[in-house]
Amino acid sequence: MSSERVAQKSGVVVFCDLAGALARIRSRFPDIEVIDISGGVPSGAHGEVLFGGWGRNSVQAMSAGVQWAQLIGTGLDGVPPQVRAAPVLTSARGVAAVAISEYVIAAMGAFVRDFPDNWLREPPESWFVQQAGLLAGATLGLFGFGGIAQRVARIALAMDMSVVAMRRRDLPSPIEGVTMTTSFDDLVSATDHLVLAAPATDNTRQVVNAETLALVRPGLHLVNIARGSLVDQDALRRALDDGTVGRASLDVTTPEPLPAGHWMFDHPKVFLTPHASWAGQMQFAAATDYFCDNLARFIAGEALEGVVGPDGY
Amino acid sequence: MSSERVAQKSGVVVFCDLAGALARIRSRFPDIEVIDISGGVPSGAHGEVLFGGWGRNSVQAMSAGVQWAQLIGTGLDGVPPQVRAAPVLTSARGVAAVAISEYVIAAMGAFVRDFPDNWLREPPESWFVQQAGLLAGATLGLFGFGGIAQRVARIALAMDMSVVAMRRRDLPSPIEGVTMTTSFDDLVSATDHLVLAAPATDNTRQVVNAETLALVRPGLHLVNIARGSLVDQDALRRALDDGTVGRASLDVTTPEPLPAGHWMFDHPKVFLTPHASWAGQMQFAAATDYFCDNLARFIAGEALEGVVGPDGY
Repeated sequence: MSSERVAQKSGVVVFCDLAGALARIRSRFPDIEVIDISGGVPSGAHGEVLFGGWGRNSVQAMSAGVQWAQLIGTGLDGVPPQVRAAPVLTSARGVAAVAISEYVIAAMGAFVRDFPDNWLREPPESWFVQQAGLLAGATLGLFGFGGIAQRVARIALAMDMSVVAMRRRDLPSPIEGVTMTTSFDDLVSATDHLVLAAPATDNTRQVVNAETLALVRPGLHLVNIARGSLVDQDALRRALDDGTVGRASLDVTTPEPLPAGHWMFDHPKVFLTPHASWAGQMQFAAATDYFCDNLARFIAGEALEGVVGPDGY
Repeated sequence: MSSERVAQKSGVVVFCDLAGALARIRSRFPDIEVIDISGGVPSGAHGEVLFGGWGRNSVQAMSAGVQWAQLIGTGLDGVPPQVRAAPVLTSARGVAAVAISEYVIAAMGAFVRDFPDNWLREPPESWFVQQAGLLAGATLGLFGFGGIAQRVARIALAMDMSVVAMRRRDLPSPIEGVTMTTSFDDLVSATDHLVLAAPATDNTRQVVNAETLALVRPGLHLVNIARGSLVDQDALRRALDDGTVGRASLDVTTPEPLPAGHWMFDHPKVFLTPHASWAGQMQFAAATDYFCDNLARFIAGEALEGVVGPDGY
């Protein structure tokens, strides 16, 4: 691939809203002008490309000539309308799938092994035995079946779990051994671990609510690595309190950040992380590489990866 | 299989040292006499078969005619010499492999996601990011490559980990994609997660010691689901304190139970469970089924599963 050579002929200017990515982009495209906008867009600057997506700097950049905006993450719901309105919008789809799928596996493992309660800090009543469950033989329900959920499914199958997945369209599973459904009621009533892995759209708003929670197997483990909007949190709280839901492993909530004193910080059955299942700093490098690959395509006039359609998919 | 029919013709008497298993055995073999010895062997009782293995009741049973002793678990090291000396000794090999392999996966997941520290109980400094690692791309080292370790290997491969395994004999891996070694030094120096899954023998005593810990990658995650005797605990403590070992997930220790006040209860990098990775009560049913299958073979004069050789394997 001769992307660097092409780049040298190009006059493309890149606005970069992720200061930590500047060196990586510049080293791959030494003759491209990469402008750091993490402190704001310099007055009079003009650029066709934005690497960023959230916050006022990215919004500013949109009025400075941006034709293509590459998001650092996957989700669209926090992206300001000005950025969403970019002539071409791409998300870093797939970049975080490995980390997020491992978060789901770790959360399921922690639930069945009853971590942290089963980790001793003093002598237990009896040695040689603890209450714990098994993932093998249990059923994993996946709401949404994109890259993250498919990777979770592959690992779960290797653990001898049963896997049921739901997506919008009635298509066969791309993974052998996964049962597909198009009914959320069927999905929730069949599963021991329900993983929310669908985009936040009008169709997915509060799919987990009092009605659907009434259908679940008692002691359900709910995992949300999608968006807080998929869950009616008041209904979830009641289901946690009455034992319907055994544990909620939540990486996403409404609102974000959660205010101090929010009940989720204190609930013994809520295992909360701050929208960080994508595993943090180390993923920025992967997102930057994704952007650089797309930038090479952009310069060469090739089709971009991760183009987002108007429906948010 | 006509085991029940054969059983009805047999005069076999079973000593059962696991009170919770009585109903299950009796319902499968209604015409076999099953004697509960969990409160001691009734005076004058005589039986050819023992389901048990530990404690004085099982020792008593050995002097009451037992020809075949079926252990409830896998390991031999806690089994009294009188029981070990049974004409035929079988372990419930493989019964706990599913639960123990899941314990290993859960421990690795908890380590890379930094559970429990990453579970919030109050607003964090920053939302949207946490320090976490990945299992994908990391190397799992398996010391011992029996049923438990092989199951861990299969799951780890599905998680895109590299897997290196060591066993006594220089044989090819039964699982494609696993690199075999016969050198413990090579094993420990190559791994991010070192899982001890070998029997306690003279050859495995304190294989983890000051010399071998000097070879490991900084921040190693040590998982011990074998026996405490495989680890020099003083050397481990120093390695935890100086950062050589990032976390020790220990299901087994020396001694067991650990006395109150033992340093392992309080060490922030030790994640301790009470020799319970086999997942507790629910496994008794599986062990009982294993015994019943063997009892059917015994009655029919067929070869038993899980026969233990004099070397402890």
